Amino acid sequence: MSAEQHLISLGLVLPHPPTPKGVYKPVVIDGKHCYISGQGPYLPDGNLITGKVGKELNAEEGKQAAQQVGLTILATLKAYLGSLDQIKRVIKVLGMVNATPDFESHPYVINGCSELFAKIWGEENGIGVRSAVGMGSLPGNISVEIEALFELV
Amino acid sequence: MSAEQHLISLGLVLPHPPTPKGVYKPVVIDGKHCYISGQGPYLPDGNLITGKVGKELNAEEGKQAAQQVGLTILATLKAYLGSLDQIKRVIKVLGMVNATPDFESHPYVINGCSELFAKIWGEENGIGVRSAVGMGSLPGNISVEIEALFELV
Amino acid sequence: MSAEQHLISLGLVLPHPPTPKGVYKPVVIDGKHCYISGQGPYLPDGNLITGKVGKELNAEEGKQAAQQVGLTILATLKAYLGSLDQIKRVIKVLGMVNATPDFESHPYVINGCSELFAKIWGEENGIGVRSAVGMGSLPGNISVEIEALFELV
Repeated sequence: MSAEQHLISLGLVLPHPPTPKGVYKPVVIDGKHCYISGQGPYLPDGNLITGKVGKELNAEEGKQAAQQVGLTILATLKAYLGSLDQIKRVIKVLGMVNATPDFESHPYVINGCSELFAKIWGEENGIGVRSAVGMGSLPGNISVEIEALFELV
Repeated sequence: MSAEQHLISLGLVLPHPPTPKGVYKPVVIDGKHCYISGQGPYLPDGNLITGKVGKELNAEEGKQAAQQVGLTILATLKAYLGSLDQIKRVIKVLGMVNATPDFESHPYVINGCSELFAKIWGEENGIGVRSAVGMGSLPGNISVEIEALFELV
Repeated sequence: MSAEQHLISLGLVLPHPPTPKGVYKPVVIDGKHCYISGQGPYLPDGNLITGKVGKELNAEEGKQAAQQVGLTILATLKAYLGSLDQIKRVIKVLGMVNATPDFESHPYVINGCSELFAKIWGEENGIGVRSAVGMGSLPGNISVEIEALFELV
């Protein structure tokens, strides 16, 4: 199955691709590389998931927020490239959790996005290198922000 | 107008290109790519803007600090490449704000740098992908640090 | 001397290359580029150095933790590439310190890794661009996490 077919079979609803909230482009193409700006956890109704993980959200809720970030990334890629099948593989993910100073389960949280990508593009191509870390704060108090680098077909 | 001509017409004063404060190079060239190390908000007198945004600095002052980081990046590029006209476009910016845990306006702050780049290289080439996020702390308590990736002509 | 010969002459003991603690690959090769996931400060006995720098660890202890991260990166590269001699040079390092909000000596801490790389690959090839910054929290409360980009021979 292709990435687009995987997306359909998963039955997941993509949020609307967000418009930039500052002076940046959502996507930049550089040869065979596709850079995507840091994306937030948009819901299909246009709202964002907010609150610090470790306080307002527990790790499981943080993981769900990371999945919404993943879906927002998919929506942005589709809007820009026309199809998720234009992506050959994930090269790199930087997963940033808006966490309390004592939070320790960042990898578990960011898996919410990484597991989604693995389902869309497969275990080999959907998984890249990654850092999963805790920020002191994030824009609009969103719970998770993720930026990524993909290789195009 | 070229980037160098835009810089002159803006009437902005560049700080001195800073010397590294640790074991790193300010710039690395890799084919057509130009990577720049995280830069701080240097003023023309050699001082750095310090203090947490959301506490010692408000969002507007943070934005001014981000513009000084942008000017410091320009100074570093000029010192290394000889001319800002060697830059074809901005690919990626990582804007890191030294913010309080409840700060929410990181995109507004980092626009201080992004708007400068858009004036120097134009709306199409001066704007790339971006993440604007909040750090727990930054070296010497500087208010903003930004690293970037450019494409060379 | 080659990188492998430098490693032997330094008499440093590498930790075991860690297995991923989440959904990511330790290393991704992209043409002549070698991306490595964020690595933690593993000790040869398999334990990780934990605690916030500026509180449980002072700057010197943080620097030692950063050196252990560097050794962990070397172990991961050796496990994946077979030899450190497959690396031509360091392009980029992102050094993330799990620090208290008032900590200011991130460059000193991350030098623990950068000085190691400079000894392994030499001053010219072992030193790249870098950002050294303070995170609000890190996985498992590790003291330092570092991700990097290398160029292959």
